[in-house]
Amino acid sequence: MHIDPMVRSAAAATSQVKRKSNQERADLLREIANEIEGLGDELLETASAESNLPLVRFQGERARTCRQLRMFAATIEEGSYEEPTIDTAQAERKPLPKPDLRSLLIPVGPIVVFGASNFPLAYSTAGGDTASALAAGCAVICKAHPAHPRTSEMVAGAIQRALKKCNFPPAFFSHWVARDFDEVKALVQHPLVKGVGFTGSLSGGMAIHKYAQERQEPIPVFAEMGSVNPVILLPNALVDKAGHWAETYASAITMGVGQFCTNPGLLFAIEGEALQHFVSLLSAHLLNIRDYKMLHPGIHDNFVKRKEMVLGTKGVKAMAVVSASGEHTGTPVLALVDAEDFRNHATLHEEVFGPFSMVVACKDRDDLMSCLDVLQGQLTSTLIATPEDDEDVKSLLPILNEKAGRIIYNGVPTGVEVCDAMVHGGPFPATTDARFTAVGNKAIRRWLRPVAFQNCPQNLLPAILQDKNPTAAWRNINGQLTKADV
Amino acid sequence: MHIDPMVRSAAAATSQVKRKSNQERADLLREIANEIEGLGDELLETASAESNLPLVRFQGERARTCRQLRMFAATIEEGSYEEPTIDTAQAERKPLPKPDLRSLLIPVGPIVVFGASNFPLAYSTAGGDTASALAAGCAVICKAHPAHPRTSEMVAGAIQRALKKCNFPPAFFSHWVARDFDEVKALVQHPLVKGVGFTGSLSGGMAIHKYAQERQEPIPVFAEMGSVNPVILLPNALVDKAGHWAETYASAITMGVGQFCTNPGLLFAIEGEALQHFVSLLSAHLLNIRDYKMLHPGIHDNFVKRKEMVLGTKGVKAMAVVSASGEHTGTPVLALVDAEDFRNHATLHEEVFGPFSMVVACKDRDDLMSCLDVLQGQLTSTLIATPEDDEDVKSLLPILNEKAGRIIYNGVPTGVEVCDAMVHGGPFPATTDARFTAVGNKAIRRWLRPVAFQNCPQNLLPAILQDKNPTAAWRNINGQLTKADV
Repeated sequence: MHIDPMVRSAAAATSQVKRKSNQERADLLREIANEIEGLGDELLETASAESNLPLVRFQGERARTCRQLRMFAATIEEGSYEEPTIDTAQAERKPLPKPDLRSLLIPVGPIVVFGASNFPLAYSTAGGDTASALAAGCAVICKAHPAHPRTSEMVAGAIQRALKKCNFPPAFFSHWVARDFDEVKALVQHPLVKGVGFTGSLSGGMAIHKYAQERQEPIPVFAEMGSVNPVILLPNALVDKAGHWAETYASAITMGVGQFCTNPGLLFAIEGEALQHFVSLLSAHLLNIRDYKMLHPGIHDNFVKRKEMVLGTKGVKAMAVVSASGEHTGTPVLALVDAEDFRNHATLHEEVFGPFSMVVACKDRDDLMSCLDVLQGQLTSTLIATPEDDEDVKSLLPILNEKAGRIIYNGVPTGVEVCDAMVHGGPFPATTDARFTAVGNKAIRRWLRPVAFQNCPQNLLPAILQDKNPTAAWRNINGQLTKADV
Repeated sequence: MHIDPMVRSAAAATSQVKRKSNQERADLLREIANEIEGLGDELLETASAESNLPLVRFQGERARTCRQLRMFAATIEEGSYEEPTIDTAQAERKPLPKPDLRSLLIPVGPIVVFGASNFPLAYSTAGGDTASALAAGCAVICKAHPAHPRTSEMVAGAIQRALKKCNFPPAFFSHWVARDFDEVKALVQHPLVKGVGFTGSLSGGMAIHKYAQERQEPIPVFAEMGSVNPVILLPNALVDKAGHWAETYASAITMGVGQFCTNPGLLFAIEGEALQHFVSLLSAHLLNIRDYKMLHPGIHDNFVKRKEMVLGTKGVKAMAVVSASGEHTGTPVLALVDAEDFRNHATLHEEVFGPFSMVVACKDRDDLMSCLDVLQGQLTSTLIATPEDDEDVKSLLPILNEKAGRIIYNGVPTGVEVCDAMVHGGPFPATTDARFTAVGNKAIRRWLRPVAFQNCPQNLLPAILQDKNPTAAWRNINGQLTKADV
């Protein structure tokens, strides 16, 4: 499809949908979920065939995708996400009367979504970016991911059927197959495109970001580009529960062939017998985990290249390397390095996308702190500790706060819960805008901007800003949150 | 001061201030307001001498500046601005237990502030950008504006005394005099700078924005770059109240020598007798308004240049031109053009900063709508109407929504109320990020990012995320807003 007419239609659809109610958009999101479920096992089988991931994984991913859509439906139905804010007039105020001011959030305009290869359902065609943008009232142009074209097409078909059923303009969602990068550039740079959502690699995200920067009009670009997700194993936890954590982490490192943006890629600990014991347990577990085919040959090639680059770096030792059982499989790898060598080689600070993790053995607390200093922004940071480690944790938390969007205590970073408090984001290069999350209800805020109405008569105001509160949404009236009428 | 040590100190100060409570930061903001008031008449006289604006104007501007500081103090004391969000664990959930997740907003890091020449107090050294960033917990590096260096230094001194009195690190606020643009560039591109606030011209804002784009790490840049602020005079209003609106607009166009970013620069109406009558009344009022010295010779030169460019454009007629009474005065000008000539000349769509406005005479409603299409993003749009114009207003509102951050009904765009519902922002080129406001409580959101804590023990959580609600702030607990404990 030609880019210009597609974007113009998306902009027109955004304007048309502004005349529909939140309830109508909520119904659409639920219908999309129904249609996706209606695709049945064929969708799961297609996604599995295209991604080399097991069928059971797609039962979970489909459930998550549909749950996200229904979550946003409930959110927009309720209405508080529009942040309705009312400051009533004070005609007698001196020296000047205070006007009546009322504001709410409105959609920014058409959004281009680039889905991720590693989540063909939950972070792709009808994934979090699409769901949050449609919920916001923004038309979506979704670039089909070349790693799962049939899955993407099936999901796009479900969305298009839902649009028809709910009487929405078909251009409120477009499914677009790019022929080359020039087309992607032309799309991102189209004047009527008002935002971009991207999930994928650092190089891919930065290319999109650069296209956007070349525009005359700056637009929001939220690119989630992965992360090394450092884990800090504190001394008492290593002594007390080495077995538990070795088993837990062997599983977290290899789950989904390690193809998660929250895969734990770096394990920091203080050297000594306890760490040696933990490393031997973790290695043993990893040696017992079989390898599986990766998402696509490109991801596999990159995994092999990055892994070899890291293993070839001065001071890095391979602790557990499983030999490949077949073509394009991701064979789990555990590496070990000391803190000084880690700090000195920037290639060790970057993600190896796949079933890979590296233990960084530090001399002492200061040595460990110096390692954290060189880390870039992260989606997550994890602390493995016991209450006896509290003092260490207290000194680490302010540092981890500055590095990551989510801090996990005694757990694994994999598994991104869809809820209000989730933050799936973080300082660059984890994302291009740390002020937002890509997962959970608040992901919608990326695609909204405020508009205020000054001294506007009741009959001309949007319903949610009129004196009578139509949906009992929470509103800020003269500085107080309330569900009451004005 | 050298840039690198200054930014490093600002980053260190941001970290140190994270250990202080919201109450301590609120006390600091109030102390800054007290210190500014303590500068007495000398501040007002200095600002007046440096800006050519009358003393009485600075009584109002000082009051506004101090009110903003105290407003942010109350906001951070209360705590809801941190958006505390709690999702409690569900250990029994199938197939996987739900973790406990708790998130809040934290400061992004040091912010560079470029104040405006036209508001030496309220939008400059201790203006909205500085106040909101300090409230957020971000250290501020403020570039002194060369048009009011002594005013800026006095205000900076007040801030520094307040920092000392409240036992804050001095580097939490730095006052910086740039020697050249290379230094400005180096500052904006310093890796430890995490955000920029700018108020000023389009060319200035875009230069800063470009510096920021050249960084490796993208950072939030909120540049407020002014606007033409279109006003639409609807037919019935022109008939009913031509005299009232002519007088009101003569005053709005020339107040502060027209040096407001919300100055009404374009007046759209449908041609005919009523419009002719309005134009003659407005011209007569303008001819009676004396001219005053503009802020500085550069602003005056630019005003003359832009005004002459517009008046020299095909089809533009000068309706009221007052002859200059002295050097560097801003002489009020009213111009008239028809819709077609307006649409055909892009130079007419851009701001003339000063006491200038242009009436665009349209043939009919469609002709008027076509003019709105060519307008770029705006801070404000204004509708002058009577209830008989409601149908026109209803068809105009969706268009104005897409163009502007604030819509005024039967008023003037000048005068930006400081309150929760204010939106002082808007689509590009009014600002570089329409998702935020520069004025009002919500301006603080520009300098905050979310962080989540997963399964974190109570004693290690920030106080506002613990089960017990320490300040009775509004918190989102399992999807419900409440002031209760967990």
